[in-house]
Amino acid sequence: MERPQSTVRTVPEIPAFSYEDVLGVVSPLEAIERVREGFVEYASGEWAMPAKTYLDASPNGDFRAMPARGAGLAILKWVTSFPGNPSAGLPVVMGVICVSSDTTGELLALIDVRSVTALRTGAVAAVAAQELAREDASTVGIIGCGLHGGWAARCLAAAEYGPGVLYDPDPEAAGSLAGELGWEAGAREDALGCDVVTCVTPGAEPVVRAGDLRAGVHLNLLGADGPGKAEAELEVVESCTLFCDEWRQASHGGELTGAVEAGRVRREDVTELGSVLTGSAPGRPDAEAATLFDSTGLAIQDVAICLAVLEAHRAGAVRPSTVRL
Amino acid sequence: MERPQSTVRTVPEIPAFSYEDVLGVVSPLEAIERVREGFVEYASGEWAMPAKTYLDASPNGDFRAMPARGAGLAILKWVTSFPGNPSAGLPVVMGVICVSSDTTGELLALIDVRSVTALRTGAVAAVAAQELAREDASTVGIIGCGLHGGWAARCLAAAEYGPGVLYDPDPEAAGSLAGELGWEAGAREDALGCDVVTCVTPGAEPVVRAGDLRAGVHLNLLGADGPGKAEAELEVVESCTLFCDEWRQASHGGELTGAVEAGRVRREDVTELGSVLTGSAPGRPDAEAATLFDSTGLAIQDVAICLAVLEAHRAGAVRPSTVRL
Repeated sequence: MERPQSTVRTVPEIPAFSYEDVLGVVSPLEAIERVREGFVEYASGEWAMPAKTYLDASPNGDFRAMPARGAGLAILKWVTSFPGNPSAGLPVVMGVICVSSDTTGELLALIDVRSVTALRTGAVAAVAAQELAREDASTVGIIGCGLHGGWAARCLAAAEYGPGVLYDPDPEAAGSLAGELGWEAGAREDALGCDVVTCVTPGAEPVVRAGDLRAGVHLNLLGADGPGKAEAELEVVESCTLFCDEWRQASHGGELTGAVEAGRVRREDVTELGSVLTGSAPGRPDAEAATLFDSTGLAIQDVAICLAVLEAHRAGAVRPSTVRL
Repeated sequence: MERPQSTVRTVPEIPAFSYEDVLGVVSPLEAIERVREGFVEYASGEWAMPAKTYLDASPNGDFRAMPARGAGLAILKWVTSFPGNPSAGLPVVMGVICVSSDTTGELLALIDVRSVTALRTGAVAAVAAQELAREDASTVGIIGCGLHGGWAARCLAAAEYGPGVLYDPDPEAAGSLAGELGWEAGAREDALGCDVVTCVTPGAEPVVRAGDLRAGVHLNLLGADGPGKAEAELEVVESCTLFCDEWRQASHGGELTGAVEAGRVRREDVTELGSVLTGSAPGRPDAEAATLFDSTGLAIQDVAICLAVLEAHRAGAVRPSTVRL
């Protein structure tokens, strides 16, 4: 049997943007602006995001397939959460973002998932602080100085918050970040005494306890990403004015999930960040309130960063390797 | 602000298998065996497949995110259905399959989506015929000789069915395939007179009508993939012994959907192919029955082909390009 002739097909070179390509071309400040725009577009109904799908890979972790569409792009983020990986020298978060044209369906780019995830996770901490923290807020406390804690710190610094106190059970992680940013390493209690407190821990046990809450603080809780995980005690959640990135995700796999399941928090108690950004819902009620933002991580944030990468590429600012499929 | 040091990371070369790489290394006969194994593993509970997610891209089409796990692999297929694309010289089906290790989460390969989809779609037509057609079935009718119709014909030929009659509204498409396989181009009615009739049309209007059905025929219906689409009239569906690849997909976006919605077909009227292959459900009842197999296309079929590609690569049979992310 002869080999069939292939049908008419073009074989474009698809750019493949590495970790270094992405971080070299999208600054923390640009990430903040892009992510802010993404939330506004999504809240306005311009961008779309179906629910993410989980593929269980017990006992090691799971894969998530996260599609979203915006600004002419259709993306699919294929990303792991393999919590035990660091003990084998591998990252928790691995994968790739496939970026296609939503007009022709053509694959436009492949983008490293870790860099985009780090930027968009860090950026939303700054967007939420700008929108929800007291107007005179300046000092930053970071609890958890891993990859995402580091990028939250960098983005908050880029948004001119600081100085900051960095806490991590591993003093070297806190010290290294402190050296980079000119901030200082400190105790958990010192970090909790700052105006904008950002937690990026595994969520295995609460790091913000009932007695830690102070009037006027803004809490960004970025770590809890699944059932049973929480960074704040239930009493803290109940005492705060509550915000989240998306109710659907936050109520099922975020910081708020435990409180929702316990019947202590209802839909009407929580405001989505996008609604505050578009002005359709109020933000911080007054200077005395403690505000809590639950970030679960949305694929529209990834769209926003991918858009920045592709625009930088079009402008010649980055030279990725390419691949033919 | 200094650039952060990157954390410990390995940057492996990820193989990227092109359309030609895949079709050059996985023969139709191997595709058939692999897809058969995939159905058996899935029916046995060894492989897993969450529901696919659709991302609407109206008015041009949609994207599908299809995860699945099997044989140590976790895959995500990111694939378009853009029906109007051929008029712009682009394929209907475009995209990429991301293949990861389900043990470490590492990305192992990127694979062209068109070749894998063509092979697994063609292969299931042969598997279903081997399992459900009369034992003495030999002749093949193909209705619709596009990319997938062509691969169904090649796989049926590889499984030693034939000779065949090929029908397509475009005589050149039918003629070219006839020349390749040593079969003949003919009328729709001639194709419908064969033992194994395989339809791979857009499903916009039925090509198997009530008067066309003959005792003992086996019908593979591969084309209908969404609401309102059908290749057979309702009377045909009602007169056949019914099989499908997966009830969940077939009842919501396949040939059977219209009959299910009309209340004419219920879950207990339809047997999944995997159950027949594992022996947990009967196949063809007798030589006189007309059997109908509704193929909607499963991500576990893609896992099966990806596994073949990766094994061929390990054996040195293919030299893909590589990419670093």
